[in-house]
Amino acid sequence: MTDRIEVGILGATGTVGQELVLALTEHPWFVIRWLAASERSAGRRYADATPWRLQAPPPAEIGNMMVQSCTPVGAPRLVFSGLDAAVAGEVEGAFATAGHTIVSNARSYRMDDDVPLLVPEINPDHLALLKVQTEKRKWAGRIITNPNCSTIMLAMALAPLLPFGVRSVMVSTLQAISGAGYPGIPSLDIVGNVIPYIAGEEEKIESETRKILGCLKDERIEPHPVTVSAQTTRVPVLNGHTELVSVALDTSPGLDEIRHAFRVFTGRPQAEELPNAPRQPIVYLDLPDRPQPRLDVNCENGMGVTVGRLRACPVLDFKFVVHGHNTIRGAAGAALLNAELLCSDGLV
Amino acid sequence: MTDRIEVGILGATGTVGQELVLALTEHPWFVIRWLAASERSAGRRYADATPWRLQAPPPAEIGNMMVQSCTPVGAPRLVFSGLDAAVAGEVEGAFATAGHTIVSNARSYRMDDDVPLLVPEINPDHLALLKVQTEKRKWAGRIITNPNCSTIMLAMALAPLLPFGVRSVMVSTLQAISGAGYPGIPSLDIVGNVIPYIAGEEEKIESETRKILGCLKDERIEPHPVTVSAQTTRVPVLNGHTELVSVALDTSPGLDEIRHAFRVFTGRPQAEELPNAPRQPIVYLDLPDRPQPRLDVNCENGMGVTVGRLRACPVLDFKFVVHGHNTIRGAAGAALLNAELLCSDGLV
Amino acid sequence: MTDRIEVGILGATGTVGQELVLALTEHPWFVIRWLAASERSAGRRYADATPWRLQAPPPAEIGNMMVQSCTPVGAPRLVFSGLDAAVAGEVEGAFATAGHTIVSNARSYRMDDDVPLLVPEINPDHLALLKVQTEKRKWAGRIITNPNCSTIMLAMALAPLLPFGVRSVMVSTLQAISGAGYPGIPSLDIVGNVIPYIAGEEEKIESETRKILGCLKDERIEPHPVTVSAQTTRVPVLNGHTELVSVALDTSPGLDEIRHAFRVFTGRPQAEELPNAPRQPIVYLDLPDRPQPRLDVNCENGMGVTVGRLRACPVLDFKFVVHGHNTIRGAAGAALLNAELLCSDGLV
Amino acid sequence: MTDRIEVGILGATGTVGQELVLALTEHPWFVIRWLAASERSAGRRYADATPWRLQAPPPAEIGNMMVQSCTPVGAPRLVFSGLDAAVAGEVEGAFATAGHTIVSNARSYRMDDDVPLLVPEINPDHLALLKVQTEKRKWAGRIITNPNCSTIMLAMALAPLLPFGVRSVMVSTLQAISGAGYPGIPSLDIVGNVIPYIAGEEEKIESETRKILGCLKDERIEPHPVTVSAQTTRVPVLNGHTELVSVALDTSPGLDEIRHAFRVFTGRPQAEELPNAPRQPIVYLDLPDRPQPRLDVNCENGMGVTVGRLRACPVLDFKFVVHGHNTIRGAAGAALLNAELLCSDGLV
Repeated sequence: MTDRIEVGILGATGTVGQELVLALTEHPWFVIRWLAASERSAGRRYADATPWRLQAPPPAEIGNMMVQSCTPVGAPRLVFSGLDAAVAGEVEGAFATAGHTIVSNARSYRMDDDVPLLVPEINPDHLALLKVQTEKRKWAGRIITNPNCSTIMLAMALAPLLPFGVRSVMVSTLQAISGAGYPGIPSLDIVGNVIPYIAGEEEKIESETRKILGCLKDERIEPHPVTVSAQTTRVPVLNGHTELVSVALDTSPGLDEIRHAFRVFTGRPQAEELPNAPRQPIVYLDLPDRPQPRLDVNCENGMGVTVGRLRACPVLDFKFVVHGHNTIRGAAGAALLNAELLCSDGLV
Repeated sequence: MTDRIEVGILGATGTVGQELVLALTEHPWFVIRWLAASERSAGRRYADATPWRLQAPPPAEIGNMMVQSCTPVGAPRLVFSGLDAAVAGEVEGAFATAGHTIVSNARSYRMDDDVPLLVPEINPDHLALLKVQTEKRKWAGRIITNPNCSTIMLAMALAPLLPFGVRSVMVSTLQAISGAGYPGIPSLDIVGNVIPYIAGEEEKIESETRKILGCLKDERIEPHPVTVSAQTTRVPVLNGHTELVSVALDTSPGLDEIRHAFRVFTGRPQAEELPNAPRQPIVYLDLPDRPQPRLDVNCENGMGVTVGRLRACPVLDFKFVVHGHNTIRGAAGAALLNAELLCSDGLV
Repeated sequence: MTDRIEVGILGATGTVGQELVLALTEHPWFVIRWLAASERSAGRRYADATPWRLQAPPPAEIGNMMVQSCTPVGAPRLVFSGLDAAVAGEVEGAFATAGHTIVSNARSYRMDDDVPLLVPEINPDHLALLKVQTEKRKWAGRIITNPNCSTIMLAMALAPLLPFGVRSVMVSTLQAISGAGYPGIPSLDIVGNVIPYIAGEEEKIESETRKILGCLKDERIEPHPVTVSAQTTRVPVLNGHTELVSVALDTSPGLDEIRHAFRVFTGRPQAEELPNAPRQPIVYLDLPDRPQPRLDVNCENGMGVTVGRLRACPVLDFKFVVHGHNTIRGAAGAALLNAELLCSDGLV
Repeated sequence: MTDRIEVGILGATGTVGQELVLALTEHPWFVIRWLAASERSAGRRYADATPWRLQAPPPAEIGNMMVQSCTPVGAPRLVFSGLDAAVAGEVEGAFATAGHTIVSNARSYRMDDDVPLLVPEINPDHLALLKVQTEKRKWAGRIITNPNCSTIMLAMALAPLLPFGVRSVMVSTLQAISGAGYPGIPSLDIVGNVIPYIAGEEEKIESETRKILGCLKDERIEPHPVTVSAQTTRVPVLNGHTELVSVALDTSPGLDEIRHAFRVFTGRPQAEELPNAPRQPIVYLDLPDRPQPRLDVNCENGMGVTVGRLRACPVLDFKFVVHGHNTIRGAAGAALLNAELLCSDGLV
């Protein structure tokens, strides 16, 4: 217990910050020593400053911690960031300059050439960018990022298909309200309604997917040549993004072959049994009306991506449904798994 | 008033039947004289037999009408059908044999070669099939049908694009619960949830669209060559289907050109000012988060189809969002407009 | 048309302001000439400044009006106020001082001794307070108010029972999200949930009810001696407050007698056929599962209060369910009916 | 493991049956050996016959069990019943006659003089009725029951107040849809709506509460003299009943005294550390907007009853809010705790 690695959380009072607190509370490798948030919250007890919205309450010792300002002084070396993009760029940069390792959920650095956009099952080799980052930025520390919540589910479902040659992808999403944070979506806009628009989301899916699936060549990422088109909507679901995907492939696998590829897909987190690794990263469901948020959102403690309804697509080649927990696999859990991989590689 | 055409309703106690009753109540051309439903309801007062689920109650004189069995004796010449597909084939056939004109919302005859699958703004010329129908079936009466509720919104949005050459279409739907009738979807399945599956729906969209947009040649319909791929979901929305559409075109119109095509689209219902015709069949909305059920479902009294978010699609050519009222434009209102066109053509 | 009375709206961009705009658009007596809102909105087109959340869009000529600051210069004599309580006190006072007649939905002046808390069916005689108000405040104008949205439904349902002697009242409310304005309740708090607390609401119900039902004596209101106890909750319903009421009476009427009292209840709005008067202010429903928001919220265009499930109460004497449209009967429509009564009394 | 007690489940495919299966799966004392349901399901694999609606799937070995008919042959001695009341009376009677111990969630025998209506924290002494039951019925087995789901939450919250003298109780409920089973409430009736009526529910609360809180005297239960008045509603919440309670007391305790009574309330399940006993049966929450389903339904694994908002009631004496998990504390978990108490008393 005494030799667990001390960690901090930037944006600890927000939706992702709360999930990070919960996920870190019982973590075998990490221990929370430092919580920071906006000036409005700084100087208050965490329990008082936080509009807690999760079922399990934060542990008493965390609730009693004093929220700090978002400045590096006194912060542990390893810091998770659940900051809003509006402030993440500047703050995370300051921390990296000051020698901290930032594991960020924000979009600010995701698409930068020298920043890993990491999904440990898919592209652990992208960590090699950190060397470039250090050379180029002269930071004493470093930044690694995880993808946007709807992008990560898509990337996970596409990764097993890469051997078949993924040429183009159409995706329509039905995204949960927790993805917009708190207070987030006004209830008048979404109770009994759907909103066919999420600002900036389609662009993120279309660009981040290519970087995640890209190849490391000569110390840079060559984006995967796949063309992605996204339509995103918000639906009155608490947690869990559902995605309707169609893909065009270069080869002609059979349905069984594809289902098999989903089911046997695995990566370093599984091989190394990282603490937050799902045993099975992609769970293919055979029932016709699955996956769905009600029944599947907590698959593998929210770290599993569920897939179902694989069938032929008359326009492209195949279509299927993908689902995942947006604040766990899509945010806090993703960041945590990234940090675990960093540790495993001796990079913390 | 006295010379209004007498009409009957098959399946009058169901969801579509109720909408038909309301829509016919104040109709300038038609007057309800006969209501029929399953044996369970037959012989009871309409108000007692019907689990009424609309805000406006049925008029007292309709509520007091006795529900009849689904047999032709005593029924008026013009009969609307909101029957379930399970029984519609046999019952509607019996009525047509007996000389009645059936305006049906059921799927039983929709894809038959000699039955018009009518959308008055799109294919009024398909009524020419009735001649073939009479010759082939030897029915004293006739059957015309309207499309499935999600298909009609898509077909309406595609019709203005036909001059640009519509080659292929991907559509993802977020469909309202009223589309499943009553009792329909159990609340345990849909409150706070989405279901990525509606039995038979994708097949209907993929096949019906081609017939609706098809050409009449030599007294038969040549299906439009467009390829359609659909993914359908159910969402916790009361009324209003939202559809995310991508299209590949043979030509390269500009965005303004397409928006203009949506806005000027019009047809015989508008030219002849049929009672249920929307003044503007397609309303294009410029706001980024539209159309959506909350704000747009009752556009043009539920008979308008709203479109928005037109933009380029990286995979096909263009994408946009379509919305329409599933039990009005998608069912009862569609049937009514069909009957109005029949009358206008002297076919009743 | 040319001699309609010009009116203004304070807080025109808010939820109540939007309902006022819609309700005034086709009003036979009034015409909107002036719209005002917070400094953030002032100087912008109404359509641009307003997060419009109603189905029917505002008329183009209203949408093009310039939003004014909340200062009296240039405002018409008769001004509706949908302002937040935070600013209503000061602003409405300034307008009254400057000679305007303020018909307010805010709580700021409701409980003041010299301000009518008006429900035209119940206490039109309370308008006599205006004389006291003028004497005491030396305002060139005046202020009248309507009750809190959940209070007005309760007061309407209690008014017919006054002849039986209403001694005490327990009420539990299930209130719609639109009652909290926009953005109002975060969706994370209410989708698939209920919140058993609305700040300040129970106190308003417990005090305002007594003033509304009170007697005018010697130019002041003697509150009704009834004791009221309220428990209020928020539920994921768009529009329509449902209230579970138990009453103790001084006399022992039969159930039929009470139902009859509900049904024959009427007042000056009905007698004088004011434009927004419901024909029947209280509609008693016999079905066991009524009233309910889905089916009853728009009763009498949202101005009718529905009541049902009257039965004996083992603890007090009788219990029943009350329902009404919170932003129409409970806010914008209430203000409008108040203004109509003022006009009818020659007080504008 | 080998000496766990074998148990069966009647009504295993229903909502309560599914919760029983899950709760029994890891039970330290019991092991499922037999599952029965209606003739429609009998003879099929449990996984095939059951419309499973819980997140965690049933264990594979349970899914593979064959569903039996509801007849005693081959059933273990201890049988849980989640049967519908429509059939429970006859079936449970047959099993008791045949020597089985039935732990029932159905209402059929609850109010019978010789049947314990058991809440282990409140009335474990009521098990003494079993002696009467055996004498009177001549059954080789026996039946014990747990209360209706909304009644049990109320009874739990009243039990700590009994020393203050509970004279009368008003309760308004906001009940979750899972309480109605599957398919249960049609979504058209409850999405974005509330229904102010649940058939038979108010009567159950008003009568069962008095029996639960009653005293055992001369081998029969003298009902508690409290008068209870209930108004029940259904709300679009998945799990968790919320209850607004007012009580009149014989004495005048302070608010702190009552809060203390809630917090220190405990009983035999806690003293004996029964496997399903919540450590703290009543959790009093100090935040103003609690308890609520979203945050509190899983308190103590669904076995804790949460209470909050204690304050004075102007009509009776005190009011407060109660919440509990309707299918766990209110059904499956209640039955399980009852069975554990039976075992502890050597009655199985």
